[in-house]
Amino acid sequence: MPMKKAVVLSSGGIDSTTTMAIARDEGYEIYSLSFRYGQRHAVEIKAARQVAAALGAKEHIVMDIDLGVIGGSALTDEIPVPKSRNEEKIKAGIPVTYVPARNTIFLSCALAWAEVLEASDIFIGVNVMDYSGYPDCRPEYIQAFEKMANLALKKTVEGTLKITVQTPLIRMTKADIIRKGTELGVDYRFTHSCYDPRSTGKACGQCDSCLLRKKGFREAGIIDPAEYI
Amino acid sequence: MPMKKAVVLSSGGIDSTTTMAIARDEGYEIYSLSFRYGQRHAVEIKAARQVAAALGAKEHIVMDIDLGVIGGSALTDEIPVPKSRNEEKIKAGIPVTYVPARNTIFLSCALAWAEVLEASDIFIGVNVMDYSGYPDCRPEYIQAFEKMANLALKKTVEGTLKITVQTPLIRMTKADIIRKGTELGVDYRFTHSCYDPRSTGKACGQCDSCLLRKKGFREAGIIDPAEYI
Repeated sequence: MPMKKAVVLSSGGIDSTTTMAIARDEGYEIYSLSFRYGQRHAVEIKAARQVAAALGAKEHIVMDIDLGVIGGSALTDEIPVPKSRNEEKIKAGIPVTYVPARNTIFLSCALAWAEVLEASDIFIGVNVMDYSGYPDCRPEYIQAFEKMANLALKKTVEGTLKITVQTPLIRMTKADIIRKGTELGVDYRFTHSCYDPRSTGKACGQCDSCLLRKKGFREAGIIDPAEYI
Repeated sequence: MPMKKAVVLSSGGIDSTTTMAIARDEGYEIYSLSFRYGQRHAVEIKAARQVAAALGAKEHIVMDIDLGVIGGSALTDEIPVPKSRNEEKIKAGIPVTYVPARNTIFLSCALAWAEVLEASDIFIGVNVMDYSGYPDCRPEYIQAFEKMANLALKKTVEGTLKITVQTPLIRMTKADIIRKGTELGVDYRFTHSCYDPRSTGKACGQCDSCLLRKKGFREAGIIDPAEYI
C-alpha cells in the first residue's frame, strides 16, 4: 500500500517542525510547504528548507505570495515589532504581528497542493495556548475551514478525496511541544523563531516569539540551541 | 456616512466585470483585486486594470501568487487548452482548465484585504450555469467559505466586522450577465475572456471561454467587441 501523504505547513519554527515530526511519526509521507509572503524574516525560508531535509520530506516547495501589497501587519509592514513584553502583555489580545487571514491563505494553498498530490491530510502547527488571541488558531476555525475545504475541490466533490486538517499541537504549551519534538528526535538547531532577526541570522532574543521560545526551552528543561545576539 | 466598501475579485473577464458594475450600482466603494498566479493569460491583468479604471474603482491591486509551483491545471501547466468543444462537452464534468482551490485562495486573499480595509463585502463573479462542474462556484461552497471567514479574522471575532460573500451572478446565464452589464453601462471592449490568447492580445475564438463568450453575446443580441484571430 502506498504511504499516506500529508501536506505540512512549515515556517521553519518550533511548532511547524514538531508538527512535521509528528506527521512523520504517524507514517505520513511529508510534503513541506513554505511561503515567501513579504515577511521581514525571510531567514525562516532557509530554516524551513533545512528542517524539511532533516526530517526526510519527500518534497519541499516555497510559494511566493505578496501579502505586503495589502499591508496590515508588523510582519509585512513598517510597523515596529514589539520587544521585551511580559507574559501578560503577550497573552493580552491579538498582537501587531497578526497577519490578516494568514492561516486561511496558507491552508488554502496547502489545499490546492493536497488535491494535486491526492494527499488526504494537511498538518498545521497552530496552538491556542501561547497567543490566545489569534482567531485562526482556534478549533472552531479549523473545523469550519475543513468543512469548506471538502466542498471546494473537484476530488472531494467527486468523492475520491477527503481532506482532514490536523492540528496536533492545538492544546500543547511551548514546553510540551519542545519535549514532544525532542522525544521524536527533532534537532531544534535548524529551527528559527525570531520575528526580527539580524542580517547575521542571529535571533533578537526580545520579540514575543523569542521570549516564548526561550521560556519554552527553560520550562522543558532543554537547552535552546538558537544563537541570540 | 462613509460609503460601504467592497473587495471585488477581478479577472478582467465578463463575469467579474459585470459583478463589479453591480457592486458599484449597489453603492459600494470598489477595491479591485487581481492575481498574477502563473496563468498563461497574463493579458487578463491588463484587462483588469482597464476595467477597474473604467468602473471608477477606488483602488486596484494585483497580488502575485505562484500557483504554477503546485501544478495540476491547464491554466498554469503545460497541459494543452482544449479547443472547439461543443456545449455538451463543455458542460460535462470539470475541465482541465480547473485550477485546484483557486477560488478558495482568491477569496482568502480578498478576506485579508477586506480586514485591512474594514470592507464588509467580498464580491465574486461565480456562476453555476455555464460550468456546472466547478465545485467552488456552488452556493454551498460559498456559504461554507463565508462561515469560515467570520471565524478567521481578528475583527470578525472581536465583532467589529461581519463578512458577506456576494455572488450576484450565481444563477445567471452568460447572456443574462451580458444584458445586465450592458444595462449598467459596462463597455465589454476592455474585458478579456480567452484562455489561450496570442501575443498580439487577440482571442483564439475556440477555447471553452471564447466559445461561451461568443454564445453569450449571440444570445443576448449584443455585438461582442472582442478581437478574435
